[in-house]
Amino acid sequence: MDRTHAEDLDRSDPLRHLRDRFELPDGLIYLDGNSLGALPRGVRSRVHAMIDDEWGRDLVASWNTHGWWDLPAAVGATLAPLVGAGPASVSVGDSTSVQLFKLLVAAARLRPGRRTIVTEPGNFPTDSYIVSSVARTLGLTVRWWSAEETPDIRDVLDDDVAVVSLCHVDYRLGRMHDGAGVTAAVHDAGALMLWDVCHSAGAVDVDLDGWDTDLAVGCGYKYLNGGPGAPAFAYVHPRWHDTLDQPIAGWHGHADPFALERDYRPATAALRVQAGSVSLLGVGALSAALEAFDGVAMADVRAKSLALTDLFLTLVEERLAAHGVAAEAPREHARRGSQVCLRLPEAYGFVQALIRRQVVGDFREPDLARFGFAPLYTRFVNVHDAVERMVTVLESGEHERPENTARAAVT
Amino acid sequence: MDRTHAEDLDRSDPLRHLRDRFELPDGLIYLDGNSLGALPRGVRSRVHAMIDDEWGRDLVASWNTHGWWDLPAAVGATLAPLVGAGPASVSVGDSTSVQLFKLLVAAARLRPGRRTIVTEPGNFPTDSYIVSSVARTLGLTVRWWSAEETPDIRDVLDDDVAVVSLCHVDYRLGRMHDGAGVTAAVHDAGALMLWDVCHSAGAVDVDLDGWDTDLAVGCGYKYLNGGPGAPAFAYVHPRWHDTLDQPIAGWHGHADPFALERDYRPATAALRVQAGSVSLLGVGALSAALEAFDGVAMADVRAKSLALTDLFLTLVEERLAAHGVAAEAPREHARRGSQVCLRLPEAYGFVQALIRRQVVGDFREPDLARFGFAPLYTRFVNVHDAVERMVTVLESGEHERPENTARAAVT
Repeated sequence: MDRTHAEDLDRSDPLRHLRDRFELPDGLIYLDGNSLGALPRGVRSRVHAMIDDEWGRDLVASWNTHGWWDLPAAVGATLAPLVGAGPASVSVGDSTSVQLFKLLVAAARLRPGRRTIVTEPGNFPTDSYIVSSVARTLGLTVRWWSAEETPDIRDVLDDDVAVVSLCHVDYRLGRMHDGAGVTAAVHDAGALMLWDVCHSAGAVDVDLDGWDTDLAVGCGYKYLNGGPGAPAFAYVHPRWHDTLDQPIAGWHGHADPFALERDYRPATAALRVQAGSVSLLGVGALSAALEAFDGVAMADVRAKSLALTDLFLTLVEERLAAHGVAAEAPREHARRGSQVCLRLPEAYGFVQALIRRQVVGDFREPDLARFGFAPLYTRFVNVHDAVERMVTVLESGEHERPENTARAAVT
Repeated sequence: MDRTHAEDLDRSDPLRHLRDRFELPDGLIYLDGNSLGALPRGVRSRVHAMIDDEWGRDLVASWNTHGWWDLPAAVGATLAPLVGAGPASVSVGDSTSVQLFKLLVAAARLRPGRRTIVTEPGNFPTDSYIVSSVARTLGLTVRWWSAEETPDIRDVLDDDVAVVSLCHVDYRLGRMHDGAGVTAAVHDAGALMLWDVCHSAGAVDVDLDGWDTDLAVGCGYKYLNGGPGAPAFAYVHPRWHDTLDQPIAGWHGHADPFALERDYRPATAALRVQAGSVSLLGVGALSAALEAFDGVAMADVRAKSLALTDLFLTLVEERLAAHGVAAEAPREHARRGSQVCLRLPEAYGFVQALIRRQVVGDFREPDLARFGFAPLYTRFVNVHDAVERMVTVLESGEHERPENTARAAVT
């Protein structure tokens, strides 16, 4: 399978025009949009205007005249269709960790008497930390479910389970859960479902309303390209719009914030999840970033994501298997997110050597080289060229040289 | 007292050069820096560089190469001396509401067996909401202390009090508590002290280490000028650097985040308070904003704050008393923050009419016109000119005209 094939795929890609909505350095093959999405073109001017015309010139009046007060809900409404939600069901703000904390406590309160939270040991660590901390704070128990050991989640559910909290796509191996199927099983057990869609929103056709999930959280800075530390988002199913009871009862979640009442009266829908003031530069950047999705059908995004990872998996098999490198990713489309890991003992040096050759992925302990395929700006020829550079690295032994194996840094 | 006097005060003001560190619209008298601080000059270029050179060009590598990972602690260390703290005791991130939630739960955990939180009914509302919500979540009781009704806090303290949470300066009336005195009384009762310094940090010589407080939270976007929704900060006294146990145990507060361990091991000092990813555009803006304090002694800032409010109180007495308008602010320096309210039935229209005359304050229900005096960029002639325009408004009756009394907006 040669480069011509990849060029053909690019020519027939219905999303090929979207790359022009991003600023990417010339020559760089960026396969880490699952960690930090690339810079969408509209962000710079939006943030500049917020600083110059809003903050600098109109100052505090901007809360009204530039809609600052409504921005977290407005950006939530813009984001909502990308994850299959109605506009009132999503708001943005805080970090994923904080959103998860709020919604887990809220879920437990909606199932009083039930004393167990179910989650996975393979979670992104912050999810496990927050689940454990919520359990300790509320006097609940964590039940760890491994899909690899016990494929059917029904086998770990009973009438003591208040809420099940899972990452839709595994941050390392890219394994994707069946959103609708797992949610139905959880509901059959009388529990609530909370999905963390950090590693799927923006790359996979997440369908929160369609899955009938109760709650969800997601990240603004991965496939949604909102910039470093962009606000996260929270989803609340309409059936909980008037009853959700989350613990960080800040004034931005109040029904009438400027009445400055002593007692808390929560707003409705996803606004109930708001706490304090959100970083408005961050929300503004995310707002502009979401314009990269204008007119884009998430089904097309998902189709391209699968075509990109299909191509990568094929090329890894063809070109890297001889070097003892294999992909760790589900072959089945229904189980695959938008990133693929390669497992090799020298993974750290391999990732560093590739960065020197202008291919950016990332390393995950202990032996994984992770590559994400953001459908909006990744070309099929990028996939081809990346694999060819991997071959070069492996053949030359660059991944074993001291300048690449010396560990200095955090990410 | 005529304008010449104010001009003399400006000429002898040791901080007069600091106004050039800010961008303020020509002709505007901005007396709302206690709500949203003005734009410091260095912010624009810092945020532009973060977007262009860091996010856009260096992408995910910026976590290392541009120090993103360390930024919340580094900016905390820069901020620390402005509030009388050691560099490791302060970190920035999240909103004030979220910081308050984390620290209140942590405080209660440090006093197991004690079941009461003491706070004030006159708090900024989010403080009351969060205190009540923490109490409900942990099964504690809130005891409301009014300093006006019971001047000595010792009269409401006993051995059931786990933590006392107070706003250092009242957001409406500008009344300031005795930081050291109240803290000592609280410690005598065996409880922990948590100060909210949102309405004092950056304008008053807050001395957290000197007061011996256990914990504190504060706001980045008021007198610290970090921009709309800037990250808040958290202070942890050194005696709790290794034992503080807060509930939003996100991976940024982990001792070794990239080990990606399943169990949470907290970092030390104020890093223990970190949860998830902080808005880095927001942290970057705050970082640049704090440069406006370079070389500035907080004692000078405090002296100027008092001189500004002294002048305002004198002029209100001289020029507005005849119109039945009086200031609501402590006359005693030790009890006065950096803002002053005027009380009048037509306060809403009064604030609107002044905005049309380029004097920006804000309205607080039901009858308060609030004016903040940010010492870094407010001139004594601004105070003089603002009062003259207040006279004009009151004499002309502009504050009673429909275009000013119609309520449309939120702030």
